Amino acid sequence: MGMTRRTLLRSIGVAGGAGVMFESMRALGLAPAPQALAAPDFQEPREGDLPAHARGSTVVVLGAGIAGLTAAYELGKAGYRCVVLEAKDRIGGRNWTVRAGTTDTDLDGNTQTAQFTDDADTYLNAGPGRIPQSHITVDYCNELGVRLEPLLSSNAAALLHSDGADPQMHRTVKADHHGYVAELLSKAVDAGALDGELTADDKEALLTFLSGFGDIGGSDTGFVYEGSSRRGYAVQPGAADQEGVVLGPTPSLSETLSSGLGRYLQLDLGHDQAMTMLQPVGGMDAIVDALVDAVRGNGAEIITGAPVTELRNTDDGVEITYRGADGDTVLRGDFCIATLPPHLMAELPTNLDPAVADALRTPEIWAAGKLGLEYDRRWWELDEGIYGGITYTDLDLLSMWYPSHGFGREHGVLVGYYNEGPMAEAYGALSPAERTRRALAEGARIHGAQYRRGLRDSFSVAWDRTPHVEGGWAMWSSRGPEYELLNQAAGNVYFAGDWLSYQTAWQAGAMDSARYVVAALHERVATG
Amino acid sequence: MGMTRRTLLRSIGVAGGAGVMFESMRALGLAPAPQALAAPDFQEPREGDLPAHARGSTVVVLGAGIAGLTAAYELGKAGYRCVVLEAKDRIGGRNWTVRAGTTDTDLDGNTQTAQFTDDADTYLNAGPGRIPQSHITVDYCNELGVRLEPLLSSNAAALLHSDGADPQMHRTVKADHHGYVAELLSKAVDAGALDGELTADDKEALLTFLSGFGDIGGSDTGFVYEGSSRRGYAVQPGAADQEGVVLGPTPSLSETLSSGLGRYLQLDLGHDQAMTMLQPVGGMDAIVDALVDAVRGNGAEIITGAPVTELRNTDDGVEITYRGADGDTVLRGDFCIATLPPHLMAELPTNLDPAVADALRTPEIWAAGKLGLEYDRRWWELDEGIYGGITYTDLDLLSMWYPSHGFGREHGVLVGYYNEGPMAEAYGALSPAERTRRALAEGARIHGAQYRRGLRDSFSVAWDRTPHVEGGWAMWSSRGPEYELLNQAAGNVYFAGDWLSYQTAWQAGAMDSARYVVAALHERVATG
Repeated sequence: MGMTRRTLLRSIGVAGGAGVMFESMRALGLAPAPQALAAPDFQEPREGDLPAHARGSTVVVLGAGIAGLTAAYELGKAGYRCVVLEAKDRIGGRNWTVRAGTTDTDLDGNTQTAQFTDDADTYLNAGPGRIPQSHITVDYCNELGVRLEPLLSSNAAALLHSDGADPQMHRTVKADHHGYVAELLSKAVDAGALDGELTADDKEALLTFLSGFGDIGGSDTGFVYEGSSRRGYAVQPGAADQEGVVLGPTPSLSETLSSGLGRYLQLDLGHDQAMTMLQPVGGMDAIVDALVDAVRGNGAEIITGAPVTELRNTDDGVEITYRGADGDTVLRGDFCIATLPPHLMAELPTNLDPAVADALRTPEIWAAGKLGLEYDRRWWELDEGIYGGITYTDLDLLSMWYPSHGFGREHGVLVGYYNEGPMAEAYGALSPAERTRRALAEGARIHGAQYRRGLRDSFSVAWDRTPHVEGGWAMWSSRGPEYELLNQAAGNVYFAGDWLSYQTAWQAGAMDSARYVVAALHERVATG
Repeated sequence: MGMTRRTLLRSIGVAGGAGVMFESMRALGLAPAPQALAAPDFQEPREGDLPAHARGSTVVVLGAGIAGLTAAYELGKAGYRCVVLEAKDRIGGRNWTVRAGTTDTDLDGNTQTAQFTDDADTYLNAGPGRIPQSHITVDYCNELGVRLEPLLSSNAAALLHSDGADPQMHRTVKADHHGYVAELLSKAVDAGALDGELTADDKEALLTFLSGFGDIGGSDTGFVYEGSSRRGYAVQPGAADQEGVVLGPTPSLSETLSSGLGRYLQLDLGHDQAMTMLQPVGGMDAIVDALVDAVRGNGAEIITGAPVTELRNTDDGVEITYRGADGDTVLRGDFCIATLPPHLMAELPTNLDPAVADALRTPEIWAAGKLGLEYDRRWWELDEGIYGGITYTDLDLLSMWYPSHGFGREHGVLVGYYNEGPMAEAYGALSPAERTRRALAEGARIHGAQYRRGLRDSFSVAWDRTPHVEGGWAMWSSRGPEYELLNQAAGNVYFAGDWLSYQTAWQAGAMDSARYVVAALHERVATG
């Protein structure tokens, strides 16, 4: 892929933090300088075209999720004024933190109100729950003053589970796989089976590496893997004669391979999954709160409970109708940035080219769900020594997250499941109470009977059953012409969201898509 | 190793937290119940034998490090009374948190006073800096109400460095080693070179595993590793057409093996090094503070600035002389628990069997040092995207730690080196200012010129040059008869410390050794 000007810009942006990008744009002549409002090609807001509460707006942003808020934030920085319309009563979209008193009603009419302990540590990040350190989300947090702390996505003491077998610690599975891989490869190298691939120096260096990588014996003992303290201890090392007893017995090579647990070991090798992962202190919605403060501080208005019912390109702008408490309101602006989920956007009455609606229907909508379980004690820490991390299973609950914060507190919220696709649909079809029952039954197969004891409260979200969202995320099987089409302006309408990026289902994708659209919009305004 | 009664006890203790052990002892008839003071075989404190400020003491504990404080804490729980004598003016031993205003003078007369920013995030844990989630240290923290947070010992974005080559991200080194290991082993398996080791099912399962483990191509492409997004990105994936540019070029197999960087990959596989690691919020000395509060709450006295000058077993107890501000004081007690470093204990005038002093001289004293660097901005986060973790190098600085807390704050303390052995001796021989200069020069070879810019303050410790400590830790080349001897009472004197455990240089070793000695002492008292 060539380094386009935009790629260069965003490369600068990534390296230097969110704020640097616009500074660089300015240096390259694309800058939304504060005086942009007075630039000859910039359309001054036309008073009278807009209702009083939105007077002065130029860009109408549809959706107050991360994409919409970021767009409004960047537009505000550049001197544009905007109105954000949010269909839900709540700002933030899928960035949603559930805490004491949070109430929600789903498309099936199920209403839940969280009865979690009312303190700063006790919450469920129902949508995004982690931020890779490489994502621009971190830059925005730094710029906006959102405090971050570690999110432990990997934990050697978390469990890996395949149905029908006892769960094993991540460290145990890893030790055995490393051990047998090192043994087998050492044997092959030693037997000369790879002489065509390796120089003598390579062979020596490789055998040395494998010895440490697998914790195996040397050539004198045939490179055999016979277990390792890396597996864990049945009795910890301690004082005096307590040397420790290594966890055993070590499974055979065949048992190790057939367990199927090795597939989980690659999960935290991925670029976006490797540690360090981060989370805002006190809940993911700290990002929403900070964006809202900044957006409002720049004079923008955010109107909630305002579902859009029609969108029209006009000769010189856009005309948007939304339904509020007092009936329909028509907003006019110069541009629109639409951040609705594509499949919902596709159903909105518009005068856009029908190809746009077709394109909006192209990505697959993928379900996702999460369940928060508050227990009356942090048994996973106190009894099992699991501090943070994720347990994986092939049961429908898919993954179980232990909190990375609030260690030592009386209570804590464990994510009983974070699943997706058909697994999430299966859970989402149940009532909240049934979801909890099912998750407790499945979780007890991993953690035993205590998983059912001492539950104080639970709260679940099925994103596919959530009004105005209706899905976990939108995925492209391939980013073809439809993707390209939606990444261009449809008249005066731009689309933004994580689904218009290569970071699907990440807040960074939503943020970068918003920046991309703001830059494109501004370049159009600035260059006439 | 057989499961002795003590092993069983401590196995219970490990599984159930620090408090459970003594409950279990009680159930098994070894219990230090509150009424133990009145038990027939328990020697009542003899008023008049001890100076007024220590009246009522029964056990004299030498050293207020983690071993001494834990011993006093457990003795207090069991109803014993004790006096703790600490040679230094400061309590905590090697558990030492340096923050604004901390001052210290070393054996060479170098005095440093930390000018760090005076806030809760800005500190250097000069001794222990991390707690594995499996250690009893965590149980004590939970029992004592010490709040813990994650300590990021592993970070895919931290650097690995061999002198003479550019540093690489941990993720990059890992991706390449996994990739080539998977490629080579897949080829060997595919060629039948391991048919003697593997069934057909094994082969299929192994090839599937290796494909994900190494992110390599399939059999149709010869299992070749050609790089992976796991290496990182030169341009991050982003919006619209920004697919991302994977970091390259990928080194050849020979280049990968000869880099020597693979040896660092095993570091966080070790049982005590694998994530999750923890640290107390606000500094490691929160453990010291909590122990001190508990010990004093139980009526024990801690006397600082009180180096012991003589220790004698008597017919019915111990007689200990220490030097205070007002000259020498003689303390008499029933027992002594001595937690001095073994090589310093060996030099103390005593009437112990000479074999004891010989044994005390057996373990090797190993140097360790640390340097804290406070910068005026957190450039490693803002410019390099490194949030926590450890960079390793074969330069004398050995390792460099990025803080795991205080993200987003204005300043931060980076550990400029945490090294040991000859590397620590080399730094320790320098003045504090020279250590900083050298560390900046070495660090700049990893992080470039910015490593030298914006330094606000530095503070270093060379444990081998620290009065009353004089070493990083004591190591046994083998735990032979000397180790056994010192794990038994020498008359009425017991020894405790991490060096009398299988957890050398860990606080857990000191704690478990203290528990072991308290249990042994109490069993002797209780059973006459």
